Amino acid sequence: MKKFDYISPTLGLLLLLAFVLLQGSVFPYGADASSQHAKDGCSSTHEGKPNRTKKVFPVLSFEYDHIKTPFEVSLWVLFASLMKLGFHLVPRLSSIVPESCLLIVVGLLVGGLSKLIGESELPKLDSGNFFLVLLPPIILDAGYFLPIRPFMENLGTILMFAVVGTLWNAFFIGSVLFAVCQIPAAGLTHLGLLSCLLFGSIISAVDPVAVLAVFEEIHINELLHILVFGESLLNDAVTVVLYHLFEEFSAFGTVTVLDGFLGVISFLIVAFGGVLVGAIYGILAAFTSRFTSHMRVIEPLFVFVYSYIAYLSAELFHLSGIMALIACGAVMRPYVEANISHKSHTTIKYFLKMWSSVSETLIFILLGVATVGGPHNWNWIFVTSTVFLCLVARVIGVIGLTFIINKFRIVKLTTKDQFIVAYGGLRGAIAFSLGFLLEVEDEEMRHIFLTAIITVIFFTVFVQGMTIKPLVELLAVKKKQEAKRSINEEIHIQFLDHLLTGIEDICGHYGHHHWKDKMNRFNRKYVKKCLIAGERSKEPQLIAFYHKLEFKQAIQLVESGGGGKLSSALPSTVSIQ
Amino acid sequence: MKKFDYISPTLGLLLLLAFVLLQGSVFPYGADASSQHAKDGCSSTHEGKPNRTKKVFPVLSFEYDHIKTPFEVSLWVLFASLMKLGFHLVPRLSSIVPESCLLIVVGLLVGGLSKLIGESELPKLDSGNFFLVLLPPIILDAGYFLPIRPFMENLGTILMFAVVGTLWNAFFIGSVLFAVCQIPAAGLTHLGLLSCLLFGSIISAVDPVAVLAVFEEIHINELLHILVFGESLLNDAVTVVLYHLFEEFSAFGTVTVLDGFLGVISFLIVAFGGVLVGAIYGILAAFTSRFTSHMRVIEPLFVFVYSYIAYLSAELFHLSGIMALIACGAVMRPYVEANISHKSHTTIKYFLKMWSSVSETLIFILLGVATVGGPHNWNWIFVTSTVFLCLVARVIGVIGLTFIINKFRIVKLTTKDQFIVAYGGLRGAIAFSLGFLLEVEDEEMRHIFLTAIITVIFFTVFVQGMTIKPLVELLAVKKKQEAKRSINEEIHIQFLDHLLTGIEDICGHYGHHHWKDKMNRFNRKYVKKCLIAGERSKEPQLIAFYHKLEFKQAIQLVESGGGGKLSSALPSTVSIQ
Repeated sequence: MKKFDYISPTLGLLLLLAFVLLQGSVFPYGADASSQHAKDGCSSTHEGKPNRTKKVFPVLSFEYDHIKTPFEVSLWVLFASLMKLGFHLVPRLSSIVPESCLLIVVGLLVGGLSKLIGESELPKLDSGNFFLVLLPPIILDAGYFLPIRPFMENLGTILMFAVVGTLWNAFFIGSVLFAVCQIPAAGLTHLGLLSCLLFGSIISAVDPVAVLAVFEEIHINELLHILVFGESLLNDAVTVVLYHLFEEFSAFGTVTVLDGFLGVISFLIVAFGGVLVGAIYGILAAFTSRFTSHMRVIEPLFVFVYSYIAYLSAELFHLSGIMALIACGAVMRPYVEANISHKSHTTIKYFLKMWSSVSETLIFILLGVATVGGPHNWNWIFVTSTVFLCLVARVIGVIGLTFIINKFRIVKLTTKDQFIVAYGGLRGAIAFSLGFLLEVEDEEMRHIFLTAIITVIFFTVFVQGMTIKPLVELLAVKKKQEAKRSINEEIHIQFLDHLLTGIEDICGHYGHHHWKDKMNRFNRKYVKKCLIAGERSKEPQLIAFYHKLEFKQAIQLVESGGGGKLSSALPSTVSIQ
Repeated sequence: MKKFDYISPTLGLLLLLAFVLLQGSVFPYGADASSQHAKDGCSSTHEGKPNRTKKVFPVLSFEYDHIKTPFEVSLWVLFASLMKLGFHLVPRLSSIVPESCLLIVVGLLVGGLSKLIGESELPKLDSGNFFLVLLPPIILDAGYFLPIRPFMENLGTILMFAVVGTLWNAFFIGSVLFAVCQIPAAGLTHLGLLSCLLFGSIISAVDPVAVLAVFEEIHINELLHILVFGESLLNDAVTVVLYHLFEEFSAFGTVTVLDGFLGVISFLIVAFGGVLVGAIYGILAAFTSRFTSHMRVIEPLFVFVYSYIAYLSAELFHLSGIMALIACGAVMRPYVEANISHKSHTTIKYFLKMWSSVSETLIFILLGVATVGGPHNWNWIFVTSTVFLCLVARVIGVIGLTFIINKFRIVKLTTKDQFIVAYGGLRGAIAFSLGFLLEVEDEEMRHIFLTAIITVIFFTVFVQGMTIKPLVELLAVKKKQEAKRSINEEIHIQFLDHLLTGIEDICGHYGHHHWKDKMNRFNRKYVKKCLIAGERSKEPQLIAFYHKLEFKQAIQLVESGGGGKLSSALPSTVSIQ
């Protein structure tokens, strides 16, 4: 492997150059011009007499227009994947700098190069593509594989950070910024309070894509991971409502009490409506997977399509698409996994991981490209005070909320935890896309906003993203336990669960797990019967679990090279050695 | 399972109705109108005073336009998958009627219903979508999992049928049709010879999608399957060239000897160029997969993206995209499989199967929809003589070519074989799409052509597709052996291979396997070193093969429920029973 270490950066740069040159030289031709050009070229090669007659049959013709879109999309995807691959071939680089930063830099390079050669056809990170194509796979991946247990156990804390925290951030940043804008030196006295609050609501939401990218690399413990990541998922409803609210208001200029009241109702509808839509499609998907036993091959498709339709249905009513996806994934998963085949499960898992990873890569690269290409309006006072306020608001918010939360938690959040939660509040492409969507009457104001948003994103992703790993080491924050539990451990944990369920059943003691237990019973008694295909559910859970373990063990044993033991112990049909 | 049997048709019909109604009632609203409508509706629900003021914040709003495309595409995919699922829940139905026929009927129903309610926005099977989106996954699936050994062993026969056979069909059908058109009663005396030949070249190619759909259900023996399927793949180059040739000529009206010569050159370029383009991307993909060991998650992506770019690159120069895909898949597969992880392999395999299956489903449904929607011009004489000529040309072609081929084959093709090859020459969506693409000066002529093409497709898919299964049973044609070979058999076959290679190596006798052996040596010595990552290739092939077998055995044993034996024989950590 060693001798190919140098290939990766070289290859990467070459590809980059080739890519930009290609876009610059081949693409700008009109389709007709280039097609004609190629035709002439070809017939002249074979004939030696160009322009003699149009009638000679073209042995080789060339037509770019009809494959333009899929070809360019494929090239971008390929380019993104190769970049991702390249970084991991240089171990030193990828251990210091987070991938997200490297990808943004690649995007900046591509954008810069294309600007140098005067190419303007580069794809934009426009909001349509972002929200309809790039974001859903990442969120579905997160929702489908959401660790339900820690998420539910910390739901209160997560909601507190996601709802109250985001509201606090938005109002604090918005109103202080408004005050800052009143300073004549900034030249922004025309900026209204509502515009500032709108800006605050865009900039205050923690971004799931950025959080995932950074937190996956630092291997923080499960509690902190779910706190920050959960917040980034659930604050979507708040952001959506605040955004629409302030956008509506800033167009009219006045706010009544009624509007505020409607805002609260709207928040509830957006959040719970999203969850409801997701849950409905999740149940539909689970029900459908009941009947796929004759058609194993399209099982994964139902998971993808139902989830995507759930997301789009939520977006249709301006509900929270992110919450719909999370709910859909979380609701369908237990039933779908009980119904589908082992291989379909592998396909779903690996395909989702692949898809979300590519989406993420493309988002960061396109963010870099958009930074170079986009219209900017740099206002020192506005930008610096935004960055400063984001930091301050986050710190005050986390400390204040933790003070309240810790009164209710059994496991308190320590100062270290608070620091990581505050420091992990990364902003990302969602804020950028929302800023891009903004319809403000004043074009200049929009540019100021976009520039400030990009600066905050770069600050959080680069400065916080790059320093969080050393800080975690320095503070000796508890890391994640070894991801792959040994089979013994897994047996212990899972059997403890089964045992506890059994004891509770026998004792008739419900305690504070009362509702959880009730739901489990309802699930076992009615829901599972409806949603899980007949044959399997007859097998007692314990035995099914035992078979699963055995299967895993056999695979592990063979993979670890202990195959000799296996084959000699088996009634062997393989008898070579 | 039994009590849900009746659900499937009911559910299917309900869904069908709901689907068409949805398209008919919600979709035609302009986005603005419906959005405004919804907004008013909502604010009035909450306020009771519609039109009082525009300023009230909409608690729930509705906007369809921005999610239109992905939403409708997802619904179609979901609809197609549910249909596919539904058929398999009614065992009687799916054992008599091939799936392709059922899907076309569904398409006809959807098209008919939508016509009844005056909806015209149904998606068309337009050539762009067909060739760029729906066809590639099916061909990639076929190419990646092409059984190389029987394909190469019968390459001569396949090429004979694909090239000479298709040429014969095109010229025979075209020229006899021209003669038929001279009959004044047909009213088609204005149809030129070149137009007839153009039509002949479209209608004469056997369609891989239709062949796959029907042949997968009848489980014919491997030889016949590869003959018909191989022909349907390789005749693409002939069809492409003939199509472009006659299209070009029919616009000018005269043909010179030079043009004919250029046509032959063009055929060679289209065929070998396609293979070359595919092979280059295949090697690139194999080389890339060498470096993915740190990035397992995006391994499948490279297979998909490189293949798709290969297809598009071939299409860019009007080379044979199908041959490029086949070549790309076949070239990359051995190296990619040696490099990537077991789970990536499963993902690739199952995802390709899923994707191609959905594409196929959509193609047949859309074919049905297009049949109802499309412009028709029914000319009794033209249509009946086309169907008749297709049958006659195919039979004569197969019998004549087999006569020649059998002189060179060791295993002769029997009369039964010839009958199945002739009878399996199904036409399908490729012909339809090419007919759709036609740019004829006379619009009426195009409609006559399209109607005739659809009739031939329906005739072959319905009549031949539905009767081929009983005929195969009646003639007692050799069926495919049980797909899952026992491990013992597999060992025998594979070890025979290894043994033969060993013996040949020792003897130094090359015989008529000379070039094959040379290529193998070159492959082992140089290509594999370049394309397969270091660590694995150190493991001798025999041992690697042994490990693979062992792995398979362990999984089979556990899956077949023999787990008890396994766990008791193992140094067990699971000790419950």
